[in-house]
Amino acid sequence: MSEPVALSRRELARLITGIENGDAAALQRAKALHASAGGASIVGITGAPGTGKSTLVAALTKEARIRNRTVAILSIDPSSPFSGGAILGDRIRMRELSGDAGVFIRSMANRGAKGGLAHAAADVSAVLAAAGYHYIFLETVGAGQAEVDVARVADTVVVVEAPGMGDDVQAIKAGILEIADILVVNKADRDGADATVAALKAALELGEATSGHHGLSLPTAIHANDSSRRMPLIKTVATKGQGIAELLNAIEQHSTQMLQNAELRRQRAEAEIMLRLGQLLMAEGERRLDRDALLRWATACAAHEAHPDDAARDLLRSILPDTL
Amino acid sequence: MSEPVALSRRELARLITGIENGDAAALQRAKALHASAGGASIVGITGAPGTGKSTLVAALTKEARIRNRTVAILSIDPSSPFSGGAILGDRIRMRELSGDAGVFIRSMANRGAKGGLAHAAADVSAVLAAAGYHYIFLETVGAGQAEVDVARVADTVVVVEAPGMGDDVQAIKAGILEIADILVVNKADRDGADATVAALKAALELGEATSGHHGLSLPTAIHANDSSRRMPLIKTVATKGQGIAELLNAIEQHSTQMLQNAELRRQRAEAEIMLRLGQLLMAEGERRLDRDALLRWATACAAHEAHPDDAARDLLRSILPDTL
Repeated sequence: MSEPVALSRRELARLITGIENGDAAALQRAKALHASAGGASIVGITGAPGTGKSTLVAALTKEARIRNRTVAILSIDPSSPFSGGAILGDRIRMRELSGDAGVFIRSMANRGAKGGLAHAAADVSAVLAAAGYHYIFLETVGAGQAEVDVARVADTVVVVEAPGMGDDVQAIKAGILEIADILVVNKADRDGADATVAALKAALELGEATSGHHGLSLPTAIHANDSSRRMPLIKTVATKGQGIAELLNAIEQHSTQMLQNAELRRQRAEAEIMLRLGQLLMAEGERRLDRDALLRWATACAAHEAHPDDAARDLLRSILPDTL
Repeated sequence: MSEPVALSRRELARLITGIENGDAAALQRAKALHASAGGASIVGITGAPGTGKSTLVAALTKEARIRNRTVAILSIDPSSPFSGGAILGDRIRMRELSGDAGVFIRSMANRGAKGGLAHAAADVSAVLAAAGYHYIFLETVGAGQAEVDVARVADTVVVVEAPGMGDDVQAIKAGILEIADILVVNKADRDGADATVAALKAALELGEATSGHHGLSLPTAIHANDSSRRMPLIKTVATKGQGIAELLNAIEQHSTQMLQNAELRRQRAEAEIMLRLGQLLMAEGERRLDRDALLRWATACAAHEAHPDDAARDLLRSILPDTL
C-alpha cells in the first residue's frame, strides 16, 4: 500500500471540479496521483431508484467510521446535467455525516462531457485513493449502460434491490446481476422481501446457465466470480442499521481478494482501458465523420431510397478507409 | 404510402427470427422490404418497471382495433438473454389480444448480438411496416442507454411514469424526458398522481433551461420538439381504459406531423444511421484491437505503473494509425 498524498479538502474539491471539466492541468495531476492510488477499496453501489441506496451508503459510512476507516462518497448521476451540488434528498440524508473530517462527500453529474462520466469517476476515485481515503463509495443512480460503465470502474460492485419495486418480472435483470459482486436486498423488513430474495436466487441460477450471452459494448470479463459463483446475498434494513456490519464485512472480504489477486486486478484494469478506448474511438469517429455525406444519406433513407445499414457502412469507410 | 407486402404470420415470424440471429438472407430481405416501409407509425413506449407499460400497450392496441387499425407489438428487453418467447407476465396480459388477426405480438431480447438489438428492432419494425401494420408499438423495458437507442428507432416516443415509484427525486430524469414526444402518467387514479404530474412539468421546464447539455454517444438531435415545446402530458388509467383514446389521438397527431415533415424524417434517419455507425465502429475497433498490447498495458495499469488513459490512447493508435 502506497503512502497517502497530503491534500486538503479544498484542494481535493478543486481538483475534482477540474477533472469534471476536463481541465488539462487537473487531468495531469490526477494521472500523477494514480501511482499512489493503490490502497483504497473502490466500491460501486448501484440499483434502481427507490431501493434506498443513499440510506444504505450513509449506514455503511457510519459502520466504516466505527471501524476507524475514512470514507469518500461519490454520488454519480449520468442522466443529470447538474453537478457539484448534491441532489436535495441526498443532502438531507448526508447532513449528519458531513461534519465528520473522516468523510468526504461529493456529487458528480454529466456536465456535457460526452460519455466521459465513467472515466471522470475513475480519475476522481484514484485521486481520493491517493489522498488516503480507505473506502470510496461510488453511488450510481439507475441501472443503464452508463451505470454499468461506472460500476466497472469499481473493485467491488454492490447491486441493491428492494421488495415491491413494481410488479414487472423484468425488475430483476440478468444484465445488472452480471456485474454484481455482492447482492443486497434492502428494506428487508417489508412485505415481499423473501420473494425478492428467492427471485434473485433464481435469476442468479439462470445467469449461470446463460452467462456469456449478453454483450456490452467492447466487453471484457471482469469481477471474475463465474468460477466461484457463491455471490453473497445480504438482507439489510439500512434505516435501522440491520445487516450493515455483515455487508461491510462482505465488501472488505471481496476487496481484499481483489488486492491480493493480480489476475483480477489485471482484468479490472483491462475493463477500464477498454471503457476509455471505446470513448476515444467514438469521439475520433465523430471527428472524422463526413457530415455532408451523412446529410445526403439521411435524406435518401428518409425517402426510403436507401437503407440505413448501407449508409452506416459507407460512412464507416470514410472513418476507417481500409475497412471492407 | 406504399403498398403493403403480403406476408403470412409464419413468414413474418421466421423473418424476425432470422433478423434476430443476424442471418444474411433475412437481413437482405429486410433491406428489400425497407423500401415499402413508409406508411406505419412506429411508436416507442418506454418507462421504468412498474409503470404499467404492458397494460398501457394492451389498452392502446384495443383502442386502435376499435378504430380499425392493425397493430404489431414488439416487446424489447435489452438486458435479457432470452428471446422469441414473451415474458410470462406479458403473455398473460396479451392473451386476450392474441386471438385477433389484426394484432401481431412478438418479444425480442439480446440474443448475444452485441449492442445490435436497437438496429434489429429497426429492421423488424421496417418489416412489420412493409407487411402493412398501421401501428408498431416498440415496448422497451427500463430506461438505460440501450432503451434510449431503441426509442430513437421510433417515430414517436411515449415515456410512461407512474405515481409512487420510489421516494428518490431522481426517479424523474432529464435524460429520458429529452427523448420523449409524449409523456404519460399512468395509474393516475393513485395517490400522488398530481404530484407526479407537477414534478414532470417542473422537470420539463428545467429541461428547457438546460437542454443541449446532455451528451449521448455520437448524439444527433431528433424529435425536434425543442422549438415548439408544448409536449403532451396525458393522464391514463390503463387498467380502466381511461385516457387511452386521448393518448392514441396524441400519438396519431405526432405521427402525422412526422410523416409530413421531411426535416424531422431526415433527422430520424440520421439518428438511425449514427446508431448503426457507432455499432459498426465499435465492432471494427474490437476486431482490430491488439490483444497482446492490451494485456501488457492492463498488467502495467494494475501495478499502477501506467495510466489507463495512456493505454487507451496507445491502443487507439493501433486501431486508427493516423490518430494524433
